[in-house]
Amino acid sequence: MIIFKKIAIVGVGLIGGSIGLAIRTRRLSLKVIGIGRRKASLDRAIQKSAIDKATLEMEEGIKDADLVIIATPVNTVREKILEAAGYAKPGSVIIDVNSTKQNIVGISQKLPEGVYFIGTHPMAGSEKSGILSSSPELFDNTICIITPTAGTDKKVLEKIRMFWESLGARVCFMSPKAHDVMVAKASHLPHILAYALCNTLSEKELNVTGSGFKDVTRIAKSSPQMWEEIFIGNKSSVLKAIALFEKNLDILKYDIAKNKRLSLRRRLKNAMEKRQIIG
Amino acid sequence: MIIFKKIAIVGVGLIGGSIGLAIRTRRLSLKVIGIGRRKASLDRAIQKSAIDKATLEMEEGIKDADLVIIATPVNTVREKILEAAGYAKPGSVIIDVNSTKQNIVGISQKLPEGVYFIGTHPMAGSEKSGILSSSPELFDNTICIITPTAGTDKKVLEKIRMFWESLGARVCFMSPKAHDVMVAKASHLPHILAYALCNTLSEKELNVTGSGFKDVTRIAKSSPQMWEEIFIGNKSSVLKAIALFEKNLDILKYDIAKNKRLSLRRRLKNAMEKRQIIG
Repeated sequence: MIIFKKIAIVGVGLIGGSIGLAIRTRRLSLKVIGIGRRKASLDRAIQKSAIDKATLEMEEGIKDADLVIIATPVNTVREKILEAAGYAKPGSVIIDVNSTKQNIVGISQKLPEGVYFIGTHPMAGSEKSGILSSSPELFDNTICIITPTAGTDKKVLEKIRMFWESLGARVCFMSPKAHDVMVAKASHLPHILAYALCNTLSEKELNVTGSGFKDVTRIAKSSPQMWEEIFIGNKSSVLKAIALFEKNLDILKYDIAKNKRLSLRRRLKNAMEKRQIIG
Repeated sequence: MIIFKKIAIVGVGLIGGSIGLAIRTRRLSLKVIGIGRRKASLDRAIQKSAIDKATLEMEEGIKDADLVIIATPVNTVREKILEAAGYAKPGSVIIDVNSTKQNIVGISQKLPEGVYFIGTHPMAGSEKSGILSSSPELFDNTICIITPTAGTDKKVLEKIRMFWESLGARVCFMSPKAHDVMVAKASHLPHILAYALCNTLSEKELNVTGSGFKDVTRIAKSSPQMWEEIFIGNKSSVLKAIALFEKNLDILKYDIAKNKRLSLRRRLKNAMEKRQIIG
């Protein structure tokens, strides 16, 4: 099932590369063009069969594309959308894969007539980055949040929903604001806790950690540059999520300090049962 | 290499069962006897080949054993050590596998003449429990902390070190107090953060979590009863560890709130580099 004949991916790293691999493995388009800044990365993407063709020139890559996917680092997404839109053909659709949305969706109003933009956020990833870590199964059974706004074209929205589902993701719709609040809690908060936990232990103490500590802090191996952008880009929701977490931690602390065994056990059990919901 | 000819394991769950499996797979003793309260669990342990023989009677299981391993739930460890010691033969050694030590090691002075006790803590485990989750490789490449005291017999200590190394663990020695402070940070703190994080999200929000959240909170699937005991049993060190974590979280919060990008990135990078030490 081909929804978009020609697809351009701007930024062929972990996410962009995995999208390319998933499209090509599942034969979801006739041609995938990768656009990047470094020839070496693009060469690797071609070797890995994540893209059919590569170019360093935005115009060359974009001009015939039916779908343009912006998968560049967080702090460049806005400018890349605008740059791509300048070359995009009428009727084409631009999507991003960024993990914050309020700071991006307003851009729709700045695009040329007939070029559509829809914010999307595949909740997939890894502490690793780069084309070499990409995988055609990265989106299997993951959630992709799509953030339409009042001006979003319904037919285009439907095509983007089908596109993400064809890559293996389950789609859910949310306003940009609801999205940012939600991911602050579901994704940004766990990351900041993992970073803070690593900073709490000395190197000597790190050496007696077991598999539990390793799991909790695995995501602290993620790119500091990327997470600096996300934490500050979604500051207000992130700080609110941290405050809510602190409240929950305070409750457990109180139970421990005061030997409130029954209450403590009930709250731990509640946490366990919630965690079991997601398998 | 047989260090102890006959080994009794009191409590054949995840840890006790895995010790039995490791002993039998590696042929580290002539006989492994499992002692438990429920026949059904003991039958499963025999079916799984974790033990050679099973009994519900402490005296029967202990009397000929050269090594007794107490692997019962946290809140029963003290009484089980004392009970086993009443039947233990002169020259035999009792060890526990409990994750707190100051509340247990003092027990050495209450044991009959000629019966030795050494506190040990294999830093291995899983959010799962029970004999069905046990594995002969559970201790491979993990740390086992041994907590000798002034009165500990050096030869017995050496045998216990060799025993844990023969199960695949790397051994490190520490005072009971240093142990409790260390594991409060390396193990108990990550658990309490995972529980508090689960309690922070609504069920709806849980449904948009990705692999990062899942990893961070996997250990919140651990037994609430067990962790209630551990948190309260190691209260003073746990509360100190939480306070130290809060200080580190506050620093990140400040950087985010004040747009201190360079400082934030440096601290995230520091956390990332620490995490990379442990692979």
